[in-house]
Amino acid sequence: MKIGILGGGQLGRMLIQSALKYDDQFYTLDPASDAPCSSISHFTQGNFNDYDTVLNFGKDKDVVTIEIEHVNADALAELEKQGVKVVPNAAIIKTIQQKILQKEFYKTYDIPSPEFQVVWDSEEKIMMPLPFVQKMNTGGYDGKGVQVIKTEDDYQHLWKEASVIENLVDIDKELSVIVARNENGETKIFPVTEMVADPKLNLLDFNICPVFLSDDIRNQIDSITEKFLNAVNSPGLFAIELFLDKQGKVWVNETAPRLHNSGHQSQEGNANSQFEQMYRVVKNLPLADTDAFTYSGMLNLVGAEGHAGKVIYEGMDDVLKLPKTYIHLYGKTETKPGRKMGHINVLADSREELMEKLIKVKSMIKVIAE
Amino acid sequence: MKIGILGGGQLGRMLIQSALKYDDQFYTLDPASDAPCSSISHFTQGNFNDYDTVLNFGKDKDVVTIEIEHVNADALAELEKQGVKVVPNAAIIKTIQQKILQKEFYKTYDIPSPEFQVVWDSEEKIMMPLPFVQKMNTGGYDGKGVQVIKTEDDYQHLWKEASVIENLVDIDKELSVIVARNENGETKIFPVTEMVADPKLNLLDFNICPVFLSDDIRNQIDSITEKFLNAVNSPGLFAIELFLDKQGKVWVNETAPRLHNSGHQSQEGNANSQFEQMYRVVKNLPLADTDAFTYSGMLNLVGAEGHAGKVIYEGMDDVLKLPKTYIHLYGKTETKPGRKMGHINVLADSREELMEKLIKVKSMIKVIAE
Repeated sequence: MKIGILGGGQLGRMLIQSALKYDDQFYTLDPASDAPCSSISHFTQGNFNDYDTVLNFGKDKDVVTIEIEHVNADALAELEKQGVKVVPNAAIIKTIQQKILQKEFYKTYDIPSPEFQVVWDSEEKIMMPLPFVQKMNTGGYDGKGVQVIKTEDDYQHLWKEASVIENLVDIDKELSVIVARNENGETKIFPVTEMVADPKLNLLDFNICPVFLSDDIRNQIDSITEKFLNAVNSPGLFAIELFLDKQGKVWVNETAPRLHNSGHQSQEGNANSQFEQMYRVVKNLPLADTDAFTYSGMLNLVGAEGHAGKVIYEGMDDVLKLPKTYIHLYGKTETKPGRKMGHINVLADSREELMEKLIKVKSMIKVIAE
Repeated sequence: MKIGILGGGQLGRMLIQSALKYDDQFYTLDPASDAPCSSISHFTQGNFNDYDTVLNFGKDKDVVTIEIEHVNADALAELEKQGVKVVPNAAIIKTIQQKILQKEFYKTYDIPSPEFQVVWDSEEKIMMPLPFVQKMNTGGYDGKGVQVIKTEDDYQHLWKEASVIENLVDIDKELSVIVARNENGETKIFPVTEMVADPKLNLLDFNICPVFLSDDIRNQIDSITEKFLNAVNSPGLFAIELFLDKQGKVWVNETAPRLHNSGHQSQEGNANSQFEQMYRVVKNLPLADTDAFTYSGMLNLVGAEGHAGKVIYEGMDDVLKLPKTYIHLYGKTETKPGRKMGHINVLADSREELMEKLIKVKSMIKVIAE
């Protein structure tokens, strides 16, 4: 089958890597000639935000999917009209890629999400009390396009464009759950993962799985995933990012209609990974079992401050010596501060052992330039 | 790093698939334009038995390795002279690719292997008593080039070429062990796997791992792997195929200087697969842990009799519904009787459960043509 992917980054690369155990042809579209997918798929250099480019790329494929949501959804809708299967469908991509529509979607389907106000232009009066969060309607990605307004002084920093103004949740834990639904309507849910931050050590971005949750919290999450999967009138794999507040209530922060960083530890930690699941969704195959075999965790390998240029992974050989530790690089030759260059998954028999190993690995490796 | 592989079949494909989590460029050489590696690597169509072709292919690579042993070893020796790293080295490939030299190697290093006689031409008198095995000196592969001579009548079928005439072992079990050694001299050994045949059901070619073995048998195998790894003056990953006879003695049947079918279940069954280990050997990285997490087994997906043409995997959707069951196809579009098209790995909590699952899966799927 000819499978087209809008975006040629690491998510696409790991999807293709996983799917090499089946017999399909992958095609990718990305503006960067050296995108991570470029050497392992039939590659087209081009802008996935451009209507004609997406239409031309997609028209001879059996199915088109995405590994980034900021794509031209109108072109995807036209492809659907022309009979090309699009996963997830153009309508849900369009909804999720605009924060305002995304929030309205939660409201319509009674999915708990922080209270909000829509602001279309800078003249509108903000009714939400301080502190609050401003999320730009479009263009947000990887934490960009989101800011917290804490004081009246901060009002001057407000972005003057269409935004969601959202109540600031008093966060106890950040959680994520990856759900999948195929065209036949079959659904599967991955075990919940937790994003752990350790402010003392300034260690961020550990995902760990599974997470101990009370029955009440688990029920809230089950209710959210069930409502979401019923509401989404589309096959797809979705990451639902959740806040657990200090009163024990679960809120949906946002949803990504694609593979997600918070699911990477599934590569070695679960019976099947999010990438295998995504492949099955795209081909409308029976969905895979997602059981967690053990404790698993992930840390991102991010380009160090002050380093730009040809990448070196300092300390990598020492990490390779550790048992049950798995390095995943993304085929990017150039590092720059904050660039996601890879990740490391770790398996362990307990949460404590997992945290120890993650902290140790984090201290051993550094992404620098030559 | 530029890594060249002689051969572009499934072993190379799964090596590249596994190594996509690192940042290297893979180059493959194979006579078939649609070889399994052709679409996922920098591909050169050509004959890996031809001296000039191999030399030209290898000269600009950082390291050259093999996924089939029937290659031009003289060209590899010349590449070594020119400063290209060759893994495993040309000398051990040359030894193993000729059955006569392979047998002499075992003799020299006191590695137990069935008694044998070398026959250089058809005039030589065979001293070995009946029944015996004839193995052609060169050209054997996947069971080809090997025959059993049982009776005096069978003498007429003797191949009239340089051969090893070998005592026929009274086999209780066929075992295999995959060993690895890197340039630094570090070594790692995978758990022993067993090739299980069920004559009643005519089910062949299940690999299962781990295997229950008495201390005595385990000690014999440990002694063999230790002697082998000391004797092999080369980095490499090697599959040592073993016979356990009915008197409890372990013999080396033969060795492959490469990735091997008997190690495929390591993809999901072990902390790291043979493919990850091979990658580390090629790059002289610290070797990976090889622990078996659970019981694992493999069955080959082989083209059914009477079917040639565009392949269909009949029953595949039902297999995809089974938990802890992993289909691996090789990217081959055309099937023919007996062609290895893929394999399926299965995990289980006991040997009994494993065998049941393997037998069930085997009955569910068939490799046919359109």
